[in-house]
Amino acid sequence: MTIPRLTDAHPAWLPPEALRAVGSRRVLVLADESALAQTVRAEVADACERHGGTVAAPGGEFDLVLALSAGSLPPVAEAMKGQEIGDEGFVLGRRDGVTAVLADDPAGLLYGFFQVVRLGEEAFGADRPAEAHRPALRRRMLDHWDNLDVHPVMGQVERGYSGGSIFWRNGSARADLTRVRAYGRLLAASGVNAVAINNVNVHATEARLLTDRLGEVAAIAAELRPYGIRVHLSVNFASPIALGGLDSADPLEEGVPEWWAATTKRVYETIPDFGGYVVKADSEGQPGPFAYGRDHADGANMLADALAPHGGVVFWRAFVYDHRQDWRDRSTDRARAAHDHFAPLDGRFRDNAIVQVKYGPMDFQTREPVSPVIAAMPNTRLAVELQVTQEYTGQQRHVCYLGPLWSEVLGFRFWGHGERTVADVATKGGLIAVSNVGDDPYWTGHPLAQANLYAFGRLAWSPGLDPAALLDEWIGLTFPGGSEVVRETLHTMMDGSWHTYERYTAPLGVGFMVRPGHHYGPDVDGYEYTPWGTYHFADRDGVGVDRTRATGTGYTGQYPAPWSEVYESLTECPDELLLFFHHVPYSHVLQSGTTVVQHIYDTHFAGAEEAAGIRAAWEKVEGEVDAALHARVRERLDEQVRSAREWRDQVNTYFLRKSGVPDEHGRRIY
Amino acid sequence: MTIPRLTDAHPAWLPPEALRAVGSRRVLVLADESALAQTVRAEVADACERHGGTVAAPGGEFDLVLALSAGSLPPVAEAMKGQEIGDEGFVLGRRDGVTAVLADDPAGLLYGFFQVVRLGEEAFGADRPAEAHRPALRRRMLDHWDNLDVHPVMGQVERGYSGGSIFWRNGSARADLTRVRAYGRLLAASGVNAVAINNVNVHATEARLLTDRLGEVAAIAAELRPYGIRVHLSVNFASPIALGGLDSADPLEEGVPEWWAATTKRVYETIPDFGGYVVKADSEGQPGPFAYGRDHADGANMLADALAPHGGVVFWRAFVYDHRQDWRDRSTDRARAAHDHFAPLDGRFRDNAIVQVKYGPMDFQTREPVSPVIAAMPNTRLAVELQVTQEYTGQQRHVCYLGPLWSEVLGFRFWGHGERTVADVATKGGLIAVSNVGDDPYWTGHPLAQANLYAFGRLAWSPGLDPAALLDEWIGLTFPGGSEVVRETLHTMMDGSWHTYERYTAPLGVGFMVRPGHHYGPDVDGYEYTPWGTYHFADRDGVGVDRTRATGTGYTGQYPAPWSEVYESLTECPDELLLFFHHVPYSHVLQSGTTVVQHIYDTHFAGAEEAAGIRAAWEKVEGEVDAALHARVRERLDEQVRSAREWRDQVNTYFLRKSGVPDEHGRRIY
Repeated sequence: MTIPRLTDAHPAWLPPEALRAVGSRRVLVLADESALAQTVRAEVADACERHGGTVAAPGGEFDLVLALSAGSLPPVAEAMKGQEIGDEGFVLGRRDGVTAVLADDPAGLLYGFFQVVRLGEEAFGADRPAEAHRPALRRRMLDHWDNLDVHPVMGQVERGYSGGSIFWRNGSARADLTRVRAYGRLLAASGVNAVAINNVNVHATEARLLTDRLGEVAAIAAELRPYGIRVHLSVNFASPIALGGLDSADPLEEGVPEWWAATTKRVYETIPDFGGYVVKADSEGQPGPFAYGRDHADGANMLADALAPHGGVVFWRAFVYDHRQDWRDRSTDRARAAHDHFAPLDGRFRDNAIVQVKYGPMDFQTREPVSPVIAAMPNTRLAVELQVTQEYTGQQRHVCYLGPLWSEVLGFRFWGHGERTVADVATKGGLIAVSNVGDDPYWTGHPLAQANLYAFGRLAWSPGLDPAALLDEWIGLTFPGGSEVVRETLHTMMDGSWHTYERYTAPLGVGFMVRPGHHYGPDVDGYEYTPWGTYHFADRDGVGVDRTRATGTGYTGQYPAPWSEVYESLTECPDELLLFFHHVPYSHVLQSGTTVVQHIYDTHFAGAEEAAGIRAAWEKVEGEVDAALHARVRERLDEQVRSAREWRDQVNTYFLRKSGVPDEHGRRIY
Repeated sequence: MTIPRLTDAHPAWLPPEALRAVGSRRVLVLADESALAQTVRAEVADACERHGGTVAAPGGEFDLVLALSAGSLPPVAEAMKGQEIGDEGFVLGRRDGVTAVLADDPAGLLYGFFQVVRLGEEAFGADRPAEAHRPALRRRMLDHWDNLDVHPVMGQVERGYSGGSIFWRNGSARADLTRVRAYGRLLAASGVNAVAINNVNVHATEARLLTDRLGEVAAIAAELRPYGIRVHLSVNFASPIALGGLDSADPLEEGVPEWWAATTKRVYETIPDFGGYVVKADSEGQPGPFAYGRDHADGANMLADALAPHGGVVFWRAFVYDHRQDWRDRSTDRARAAHDHFAPLDGRFRDNAIVQVKYGPMDFQTREPVSPVIAAMPNTRLAVELQVTQEYTGQQRHVCYLGPLWSEVLGFRFWGHGERTVADVATKGGLIAVSNVGDDPYWTGHPLAQANLYAFGRLAWSPGLDPAALLDEWIGLTFPGGSEVVRETLHTMMDGSWHTYERYTAPLGVGFMVRPGHHYGPDVDGYEYTPWGTYHFADRDGVGVDRTRATGTGYTGQYPAPWSEVYESLTECPDELLLFFHHVPYSHVLQSGTTVVQHIYDTHFAGAEEAAGIRAAWEKVEGEVDAALHARVRERLDEQVRSAREWRDQVNTYFLRKSGVPDEHGRRIY
């Protein structure tokens, strides 16, 4: 096991300097010969080699001990025993000048090691009481929407804004997978423990990863295994036909489950720690059980049964809706679809069938209410799906730190104050996100978008963490030794950047005012007359979608109280979601005290101005950060300022032309 | 010379049956050994072989004689001498049971032969006085926007709706060019005598057709030569850099004209009857003389000078405008651009530099005023460019017979009644169109779109022909022996189909309410906030572009009187162009007596209903035409009906939402 050292990519949050505190100490590792324990040893050795520390021998002196609880322990670690640790967890404390990490399993040891890295010199300062750290969610996963070949429309990475795939190139797995190993290391340091390595839209070539191209999957799994990352595959529901030569993919037809069982057995023979499958079925053209008159539980359970003997799981996406809707039909509501399809199936899914639900009922918009499906399936393992790749939030050309959005989602309480949060519900299933990583030298196109990847891992481990504190962690690791100006500047630029993005784009939760297809930049009517079910119904009098029970689509009824009542009420519905739930006149007065149309003008002027402020702030750190990184960010910021202005003017002009209401402050609207 | 017999493509307007009248006669050909004369002989022999006629020997008896005027002639032909014939022309007459065609050159003989084909049995009926036929325009040309490779966005044929290219496949000229020969034959039978075989957007591979890939051009030229079609190439203005290794493409820099002269000389060494170049320069990203501070005359003249010693011409497109316009800027008007750029250059172009002007000032919309550039350059050879490929007129999924549109354009009189027409102006340059042909079995995707190709050739030969009569010709040739029901049905479906298409799409000349990029289907605001300079400025009060001199962009001033006054006047401006020239309130009363908004509703309901009527009419000829052709047309008609309804509803809904004015007749608007 060697620690990957990349020369052609930015180190992200693990630059050599970030390991100085550990690497300049005497470090004792007391662990078994498992792969992950070897990784911990190799990390320690590598850091010490760089920074002048030493790998301590048992019996010798040490400043840091990383120990598995099963072995014989030095006193400092022995004293920490007794706390419950659990899978992947660790206890961290410091006493008598020695810092100790104690874990029940090697994975815990690895996470503990990275916790010490994160603390840096602080880990070796004052005494600290032993504190247990356990992941809140067992499954913390990134889905890659990577194709093997460059797709004619979607590119290599569907919704990818960071170059090609780190896994695939020219139709097969890359020969040199060093970058994948480095990715695994970054993920482990943030808390992620699973990835799916191919697009959920499984095209013909990619389908074969399951069978004759499995060797390529195994090669990738081998690179991720040392960092505790289990590999998953997106599979095509019609594989028994396409790959198996059967006539049918009907989950209840003889031969089909058997094909999946045999195929899955072969997967595990090649990759014993294979994680499982990810399935997008009966969605946006992908095949699924509906073709055979079966439901999603039938489909998911068949795959779950194939995986169960081997300890695998199937992630079955709830992103099912009619993408050929008639825009004339106002009774069909895409927001209702996932709940309509899945809530009735609660209790029917196997224990290793995880229903994967997008955080909102539509599709990763900048602002959506939390999906009611999450509250509707108490007898099902649910995983919540976020989107780290910024499809609808600036495509890594705009600074948009998503920690605050995810934090709000994870902390949302369907049943009111004091009741369980979304994160609580997701403990049974997991937290999943579409990755923003590609083969770009900065991993994520926009260097500052690395913070989103980092924050996702950390929130999956501990959903209650404060997004601003996470950003602070990320800054400290990524810009070690950076001045206070760097820290303050990045907070200025990023803390509120999601709200800024929201201000200059689609107002009041209405969503989807983007250019069709690529989803970048404004087009207020772009989706208004399409089959995609994404409308705002703006006319000369008002705007918004009536989803009330009283007069609309009844979507509010999918929520439990109190939200079913709050969203139903025109006066109580939160401003930021008003147009998602109600169609109102432009003169409607918000809780904030301004009218809807004036709010649109005000936020769009403010948002574009804030974008310019973000751009200006970055100039302050020129010379304080790497020049190439500074130039890359500056180039993106120029585009953000241009784009924010474009959003401002198109949205404002659209609503001025439609409403005829002038701006109260007389600002220029075209 | 063998006549191509295709087994994998529809015969279009030259099915074997169409040559029965000629082929069942005794035919005498009196001509030289030139290639075109050989073609006439081969055509006659082929037709006689099929239909039982005979090739008559000199001195023998004959029913038809095709003779060059220079030789010794039988009495019936000798008697026709004396009429002026001219290049490519012929005299046709019948006396004493013998039909005679007399021509000065072999090309005229070929065109005369096809005229006899067109007449069919009528050519062998009653006596007819000798009548001279001469092409009104010397250059009658089709431009192919074909790429060698499939372009990732545009496909193989840019704006092509008929499959791949008949010339190119997998990056090089097709091995089997039989189809190209057959295409040449169809073109000759309609009157066309020139083609450009590659896209005016000249990508890297295509640029090399001029130099090391010239052999492929020669191979295509060899197939077209027997039918009198001269091949032209679209060339990249930056070729001296890309292909010649020079530092510059500046037309006034030493070395650059020399490179073009030497390169052109090599072209003519390989293809002695090469036609010349087509250039799109300084337009939509293509390179051009502006980069060197030169103007379009400088650029065009350099190429003209290179071509002149060999008898070639350069077609220099006037389609130059700012495609990165700011939509906020209402003072810039794309409609003005070509005139602003080119009118001041009048008189500066060489005699073999032809300025190629799109028929309208924008871009092949369903309805545009005629481009004022055509009236503004009396001392320049101008060619008028039409679009046979239905980019903006239904993309060969909709029936849209364009003969009436072109006829209107060609007959337009800039200087008022009795003055010269557009066709008169174009006699010096030519008539050119973007072809609608691909490797589709029906050549044009929609079988009925063949009529557009046919009508284009015929109008280029004789612009005054009646479009309905041309359609009748086409029907007779394409459906020989078809019943009167077929003829009547096709007239019902096609005669008014352009107006029908106009009714259900963009109203009153406003244009561009199409989906950006591919340009199919409605999107009223699709181009409203883009850099393309194509806006309608609809707000809650009104719609249209103010291009008057009094209060608008001044575009009306580019026309000579009387049109400069007619278009300027709100009351005199023709209804169908009102929104092109004026921004008016929805309540504005048209010359037709209805308001603008009611006109929008009325025409959109009517247009969609007419489309349904076209669809219904086609059912009447089931069993009367080839079943496969019937099925293909039916499938397209289904799509037309669906699409027309979509246009109707989106446009009506858009304007109802914006204006708030209900339909007078209470019809359903969503």
